[in-house]
Amino acid sequence: MDDRDLMSVALRHARLGAGKVNPNPMVGAVIARDGAIIATGHHDHFGGWHAERAALEAAKRDGVDVRGATIYVTLEPCCHTGKQPPCTQALIDAGIARVVVGSPDPNPLVAGKGVRRLTDAGIEVTQGVLREECDALNEIFLHYITTRTPFVMLKYAMTLDGRIATASGLSRWITDEAARRRVHEDRGRFASIMVGVGTVIADDPQLTCRIDGGHDPIRVICDTDLRTPRDAAVVATARETPTIIATCSTDETRARAYRDAGCEILHVPADADGHASVAAIVETLGGRGVDSVMIEGGGELAWSALRDQVVTKVSAYVAPKLFGGRTAPGPVGGAGVGAPDDAFLLTRRTVATVGDDIVIEGGVDYVHRNR
Amino acid sequence: MDDRDLMSVALRHARLGAGKVNPNPMVGAVIARDGAIIATGHHDHFGGWHAERAALEAAKRDGVDVRGATIYVTLEPCCHTGKQPPCTQALIDAGIARVVVGSPDPNPLVAGKGVRRLTDAGIEVTQGVLREECDALNEIFLHYITTRTPFVMLKYAMTLDGRIATASGLSRWITDEAARRRVHEDRGRFASIMVGVGTVIADDPQLTCRIDGGHDPIRVICDTDLRTPRDAAVVATARETPTIIATCSTDETRARAYRDAGCEILHVPADADGHASVAAIVETLGGRGVDSVMIEGGGELAWSALRDQVVTKVSAYVAPKLFGGRTAPGPVGGAGVGAPDDAFLLTRRTVATVGDDIVIEGGVDYVHRNR
Repeated sequence: MDDRDLMSVALRHARLGAGKVNPNPMVGAVIARDGAIIATGHHDHFGGWHAERAALEAAKRDGVDVRGATIYVTLEPCCHTGKQPPCTQALIDAGIARVVVGSPDPNPLVAGKGVRRLTDAGIEVTQGVLREECDALNEIFLHYITTRTPFVMLKYAMTLDGRIATASGLSRWITDEAARRRVHEDRGRFASIMVGVGTVIADDPQLTCRIDGGHDPIRVICDTDLRTPRDAAVVATARETPTIIATCSTDETRARAYRDAGCEILHVPADADGHASVAAIVETLGGRGVDSVMIEGGGELAWSALRDQVVTKVSAYVAPKLFGGRTAPGPVGGAGVGAPDDAFLLTRRTVATVGDDIVIEGGVDYVHRNR
Repeated sequence: MDDRDLMSVALRHARLGAGKVNPNPMVGAVIARDGAIIATGHHDHFGGWHAERAALEAAKRDGVDVRGATIYVTLEPCCHTGKQPPCTQALIDAGIARVVVGSPDPNPLVAGKGVRRLTDAGIEVTQGVLREECDALNEIFLHYITTRTPFVMLKYAMTLDGRIATASGLSRWITDEAARRRVHEDRGRFASIMVGVGTVIADDPQLTCRIDGGHDPIRVICDTDLRTPRDAAVVATARETPTIIATCSTDETRARAYRDAGCEILHVPADADGHASVAAIVETLGGRGVDSVMIEGGGELAWSALRDQVVTKVSAYVAPKLFGGRTAPGPVGGAGVGAPDDAFLLTRRTVATVGDDIVIEGGVDYVHRNR
């Protein structure tokens, strides 16, 4: 196997930490000699071993000699003492001869220093192998560490004529099994998931990650007037999976009922439209170390988030079918933009197919709008 | 060059007949010896030489010997005398040693007989080279010859949130230059183009093929109550490019004004919603030998055409941008389907990118709906 093959194995191991390492990055490591893998490791959970150390420990446990071997790491090794002693020192002590790196570390405490420490110790370093894949793996971490605001992804599923439900309000199902599975995988890598109260009332969703071993995101209900049904699934299961109801209501009697069920009531100011401010909710979450928010519905919440410029990325699932219906709802409601030139543009857009459905994703370009 | 390379050159020549050969198929031919091209030809216009004969004539003109050579033809050579003497006989007479065929001829008058005639004469025949591309090139012809109803393509451009205009009704432009050019290329290969009167009133489009040497489709306005503005571009240019106004109105005074400007008034029955019947219009066009209709807007017409089950293919351009707006229109209006299971499903869907935009296309599966 060549460098790229071995880095792709490291990437696969990195993904094993999905949803468990936040706000740390997912990192995988492979130790190889003459192109053959002799040990693997990954950052498994927040506070656990870094991937490099996990791989070194795996080698030690198996009685494998790593002196003179090459290690493949998806992210530049750290050289500062945080929750863990620096990985660079561990690699030097272990006698590793060559380090192959995917992404550089964007953390200003590390940036390039890890590589320098290694080369200073006489270790050969190769950088940027499968860089794009390694960067994409940690889009959440890279965003949060550099901006200190959560990575917010607006996710929706619509028909090829832009409908998220029929004119009679029915929406199950728009996409097929494979796409719905991918959404659950996405839920697993997000720290929180946000929906409007309308979606709770209409669909009574669980908003959990229904994948074996998957991690459930914190559920955030955007509920201006505290209209969440007391018997909603998100309320009934609030003791197992954290549920935050963000509201402008000051009705303490009603708030108490939700609190008694285990929900947190988060008081936020109203935005210009009189709705619970999405920007304020996202800011609060970010301040608590919540590095990511997936917005899953509905159209009014999506519009508020775009208008408040908190959406980092859009993930649109398009099913190859047509509902029609001039009153059938679309994925982004609200007032909308006035002129085509004021549209929210996507950057670095990607197109992929998942089963029969098409997934179009891209970052949101606010610079264009604010010019 | 191998068989596939040479067939791809034949395909390129076939496309030169786009918009000029209807209701005949586009066909290209390449004559080669030892993998080197010695002559090319294509069916250039309705009533003109078939591609095989055009290539043989080109060789004769250039003094090139074709005895023992191989000919690559995108469509099975004909063996019946129509507007032209049979191509099979011409190939036999010319001493061609091998014939490589893309699509079989779906015309029941020909189907397989052309190949048999050639093999009976001792000519080696290879079939199905680049069959998919050759079939796709003549999707209109293949549909019309087998069903005797026009190939109807519903085409629209929308944002990634399913809007064909902003909430204030503005729609210029949604897609970028490359996508708009591709639409003009499509217009060139369709015999007619249909829009609702609402689109004429809102956008005053020309509906012509603005590509050098391109062919303008017949323009059909679906105008239940004769509301087309007298000074609309389609009326003003009706003497250069045929314009049909399909209506339920019996107001002869108003009809005369359009006729005086060169438009044809086509009286059609009303459908269940009281609109000029799209099914009736398409049937009338088909009876006149119009093999194809491109429906370009707006949402009410799109719905009527789907509901009437006359849409053969959907061609959706998706721009990587968001308009939002709960009242911003979508590409398919009308009443819409009631339940998700009643959706119009697309079959054989394809995804491509044109510039920054994404083009999703597919046939419409009515069988599923009628089950």
